[in-house]
Amino acid sequence: MIEDLWLIGIGTGSPAHVTGEGMQALRDASTILLPQKGEGKDDLAQMRLRIIAASGTAAHIVPFDYPVRDPDLPYQARVGAWHDQIAGRWQAALSRAGSTGPVALLVWGDPSLYDSTIRIAERLAPSPKVRVVPGITAIQALTAAHAIPLNSVNGPVHITTGRRLRNHGWPEGADTVVVMLDGECSFRWLDPNGIYIWWGAFLGMPEQVLHRGLLSDVADSIFELRGGSRDNHGWIMDTYLLRKV
Amino acid sequence: MIEDLWLIGIGTGSPAHVTGEGMQALRDASTILLPQKGEGKDDLAQMRLRIIAASGTAAHIVPFDYPVRDPDLPYQARVGAWHDQIAGRWQAALSRAGSTGPVALLVWGDPSLYDSTIRIAERLAPSPKVRVVPGITAIQALTAAHAIPLNSVNGPVHITTGRRLRNHGWPEGADTVVVMLDGECSFRWLDPNGIYIWWGAFLGMPEQVLHRGLLSDVADSIFELRGGSRDNHGWIMDTYLLRKV
Repeated sequence: MIEDLWLIGIGTGSPAHVTGEGMQALRDASTILLPQKGEGKDDLAQMRLRIIAASGTAAHIVPFDYPVRDPDLPYQARVGAWHDQIAGRWQAALSRAGSTGPVALLVWGDPSLYDSTIRIAERLAPSPKVRVVPGITAIQALTAAHAIPLNSVNGPVHITTGRRLRNHGWPEGADTVVVMLDGECSFRWLDPNGIYIWWGAFLGMPEQVLHRGLLSDVADSIFELRGGSRDNHGWIMDTYLLRKV
Repeated sequence: MIEDLWLIGIGTGSPAHVTGEGMQALRDASTILLPQKGEGKDDLAQMRLRIIAASGTAAHIVPFDYPVRDPDLPYQARVGAWHDQIAGRWQAALSRAGSTGPVALLVWGDPSLYDSTIRIAERLAPSPKVRVVPGITAIQALTAAHAIPLNSVNGPVHITTGRRLRNHGWPEGADTVVVMLDGECSFRWLDPNGIYIWWGAFLGMPEQVLHRGLLSDVADSIFELRGGSRDNHGWIMDTYLLRKV
């Protein structure tokens, strides 16, 4: 049984992204739940360990493995079942470890943005008291790396996914669009005229790669750069901002 | 002349929002430009001083005053002239102080989001090398305080201003809308049916106030709560998230 669950946003790859509140929460936690296998990205596990070491916490580290998603279920049911299983694994791991006191989880970026940890936590019974510590998102790491504003002057910002950009095109009335969860360089589905792109991968990490330009000029080179970087590292996380110019 | 200008996002009121990178940048800076008067909110000046003290920096603190906006100019020209004047005041203050080396500015929230510091920096001649250190935004402080996801599952998020919400209504196709720069509780201009609101003011500060509920139930109470809080403090900063339910 988990009474207090702390979801700590750790930013996008640099231990220096972690806030003072995040570091203090790691020190105040009794237990840290650490994903072991199944995340598919060993570098991310290493990054979490480096942040835990930097915090100087004496918390008990309790590992758990991610379950495998059932490919036979339809999408929504598959995600639901997977979240149930993860919640079950958290509880089983803590129970084996005999842990008591506040339990912390290190969440990539910020727990609010395209992350399922808050939704998994809602499946725990009895419901724990959930505390969220905000972290730097990939969006902020992107705009910081390019030293650009997110919005035009007093303008709106639309945040969406690669899938939605492919299926729905440029969002109605938007002048700035941020695209996340995009494994397919979905900007290639747009009419590139009059659109500027600021792209970044491995944001905040030593491997950070950036590119920018008119979409008509740089779409192909970003697609190639992304493919090459992914092949070099075995995985890639990237995001980009599009603006009408 | 400023060769290196560092814009450091400090989050929304808690010194614990500052990242490790932000604290290190304050220590590495030679000079910190600190707004004195004209910001209208003495608490914010105090917050900056607390963060500077917490960083343990030995940087030279150089104060400057914000100019007054010329009310006779049309809006765009007024903002442009004001940004030119601020850039001029930075340069004059640094020149009086005989400062050399990297110059840091503490920026509320994140320098990318509804903040003019990057645009003011672009008006400096010769152009400095601008470094942006990301910070926690009011959006993340809001979702963290309510412990909610920003987006629905794989859904888009639309960030807009109070003025745009009043003038354009609910953004086309949006299911989640974040409203910023809203001095008028502009949610009162919407048809409240089927909309849930998560509202927060003084996010991250000891004075933090939160409210949530169906807009049809809580719109009036948030309006009254906001007015009372503003009267108590002399100023208020608030933001909110709306979602179709």
